[in-house]
Amino acid sequence: MNPIPNKLIIKNGTIYSEEKEIKKGFLKIDGEKISDIGVVDVLLDPLDYEVIHIPNNYSIIPGMIDIHIHGANGADTMDATKESLDIMAATLPKEGTTSFLATTITEDSNVIDKALFNAGNYINDTKSEGYAEVLGIHLEGPFIHKDKAGAQPVHYILAPSLSTFKEWQKISGNQIKLVTLATEQPGAIELIDYLSQQGIIASIAHSQATYDQVGEAIQHGLTHVTHLFNQMTGLHHREPGIVGAAFFRDELMVEVIADGIHVRPEMVKLAYNQITDERMIIITDSMRAKWLENGKYDLGGQLVTVTDGKALLDEDTLAGSVLKMVDAFKNIQQYTGCSIKSAIKMTSENPAKHLNVFNRKGSISIGKDADLVILDEKMDVFMTICKGRIAYTK
Amino acid sequence: MNPIPNKLIIKNGTIYSEEKEIKKGFLKIDGEKISDIGVVDVLLDPLDYEVIHIPNNYSIIPGMIDIHIHGANGADTMDATKESLDIMAATLPKEGTTSFLATTITEDSNVIDKALFNAGNYINDTKSEGYAEVLGIHLEGPFIHKDKAGAQPVHYILAPSLSTFKEWQKISGNQIKLVTLATEQPGAIELIDYLSQQGIIASIAHSQATYDQVGEAIQHGLTHVTHLFNQMTGLHHREPGIVGAAFFRDELMVEVIADGIHVRPEMVKLAYNQITDERMIIITDSMRAKWLENGKYDLGGQLVTVTDGKALLDEDTLAGSVLKMVDAFKNIQQYTGCSIKSAIKMTSENPAKHLNVFNRKGSISIGKDADLVILDEKMDVFMTICKGRIAYTK
Repeated sequence: MNPIPNKLIIKNGTIYSEEKEIKKGFLKIDGEKISDIGVVDVLLDPLDYEVIHIPNNYSIIPGMIDIHIHGANGADTMDATKESLDIMAATLPKEGTTSFLATTITEDSNVIDKALFNAGNYINDTKSEGYAEVLGIHLEGPFIHKDKAGAQPVHYILAPSLSTFKEWQKISGNQIKLVTLATEQPGAIELIDYLSQQGIIASIAHSQATYDQVGEAIQHGLTHVTHLFNQMTGLHHREPGIVGAAFFRDELMVEVIADGIHVRPEMVKLAYNQITDERMIIITDSMRAKWLENGKYDLGGQLVTVTDGKALLDEDTLAGSVLKMVDAFKNIQQYTGCSIKSAIKMTSENPAKHLNVFNRKGSISIGKDADLVILDEKMDVFMTICKGRIAYTK
Repeated sequence: MNPIPNKLIIKNGTIYSEEKEIKKGFLKIDGEKISDIGVVDVLLDPLDYEVIHIPNNYSIIPGMIDIHIHGANGADTMDATKESLDIMAATLPKEGTTSFLATTITEDSNVIDKALFNAGNYINDTKSEGYAEVLGIHLEGPFIHKDKAGAQPVHYILAPSLSTFKEWQKISGNQIKLVTLATEQPGAIELIDYLSQQGIIASIAHSQATYDQVGEAIQHGLTHVTHLFNQMTGLHHREPGIVGAAFFRDELMVEVIADGIHVRPEMVKLAYNQITDERMIIITDSMRAKWLENGKYDLGGQLVTVTDGKALLDEDTLAGSVLKMVDAFKNIQQYTGCSIKSAIKMTSENPAKHLNVFNRKGSISIGKDADLVILDEKMDVFMTICKGRIAYTK
């Protein structure tokens, strides 16, 4: 991390701006914001800017937004410490992530209390220039179904409760932005109604809901599907389940873990064909082992074994991922044959719009936060800029 | 049935010919064949032709080819009588079918022997002008998997056997054109090799095969999937099964029962989006109760209850359909939003090509069999012509 001047010009390379693709472009940053974009030819070299020259075959894309991430580099949201969130915010720019939702897991209520309190304080108190910004909290569980728990500890599962949620939202300083729950459980519809009224995203996963039950939840304000395919009712030809709802219901934005492990590449392509980049959001769902060696790591009080990109709770249960956002960005293009522009939609634009921060994030546009990723010719991260500050250089 | 002159002209209406859509067209028939096609404006009224004037909002499409049909109007292929095949051949033009594969079911070997012998004789001895033509036999079972039997009687299931097949093919007078089997069963690969060499279509269904096992069968010559979704391994995100193979492997032609009962309309649309009209074939898989009242009917020695379009062996098991081809033709357009041209591909062109009879069937083209369906403005069958003879008029 290297927070130098915030009067900065990046020259050359292809800029994927909100409006168009600019070859041999320049991008000017003043303070936290993008102040100008154009083609290099018309740029008068200003005196008081630091200029970064990049090769013409590099790309500048908007900073990626990971709305489902538990941890990285040894740190986890559930640690409930400032230090852990600092580690995540400092590490994620290495993979092109410039903002994220700190994501909780099903745990003892007291543990969730602390994690929410810590994350809420962190978000409200911390300046994020030069670090990935925590945009809020994704509450995953404990309002889920025991038969679709996956790596969520079953014994801490609770029935959906509006009063518990309200208490948690208060503790978090109103920072819960997205709630993953089993919408078929008693109490869920009442909670979805409330979330919808409050502008908080209600999402389904870890659920046994039928296709029609999802339809009912949509009527009450459900707008999101967490990690498509994983821990949900699958696509049967007479009961299309939650996957079918994700496929057929345009009201739903849909998360996909694009590591090729959670979902087979062909199936990611099928989902992309059906859902399109209008509704798909790429996430990592990563746990603390990301950016670390193979070994054994904690997830929600459970021991997870990480071997060569795969995190397992036991032989049959995947426990989050160690996926890096930039790899997801590459994978989704490889699996689906989609364009960079389409991949950007799914890693930046869609999550920003869905979180209601598209006024300041999610695209390269004058006046928006200078959250930027410079990719080299191999699509690896060369540099990441968070709110105008260089957060990572290769 | 009304086999009048075979010097016939049909005037007006839209002709969906192989090359193009002709509005206010005419179509001339000499004997069994289509002898001319054009626009009415240039037609000189010939003296010795019977002329059928149809309204401009009627459509003329190629006769439909049902490659998977057990029975209709009280008759079934397994009855092993000339009378039963006569009934089917006379009834099917009412629904726009002008040719079909008489389809067998898993049964006692002696019963299959008789059915094959009867159908073989019928095909080799019967003239089909004015009737639907039996293009061959679809052998469905007995080489299937007991856990995916569906309405096929489990106790007659046999392991795939090349020698048994050769005997049956001999009994049938070489009229078996398509074999549905469980490709993962011992002996299946050897049989597929042989079928492929002989130009007989090898198809998968009633099977537990994994995605990779289907891949292996494709290497040996598998080219077809029988009634997609029904009685096969489904689409799991890490094990896409037979449905996944149908979706992702371009080597496979794929049957779909488009009655909205066997497969939910949304799922038919999903399949269409993925498989496209290049590889989809619409079938009925109908049983003898079609064109009859609700009631109890025999299927493979079992009692099937038919109520309002649904044929059930027991509460959970569908037993074939009572779907009419023209309804499937309408349904597929409604479920998928596809064009008439696209529906024609799936009901005529694709099955004709796959059965190697596209030189004489499967499209409206000069020199081809005059197998034609005239649809009224509601897409109901107004008239069906089989090899130049009027087989049905409303």
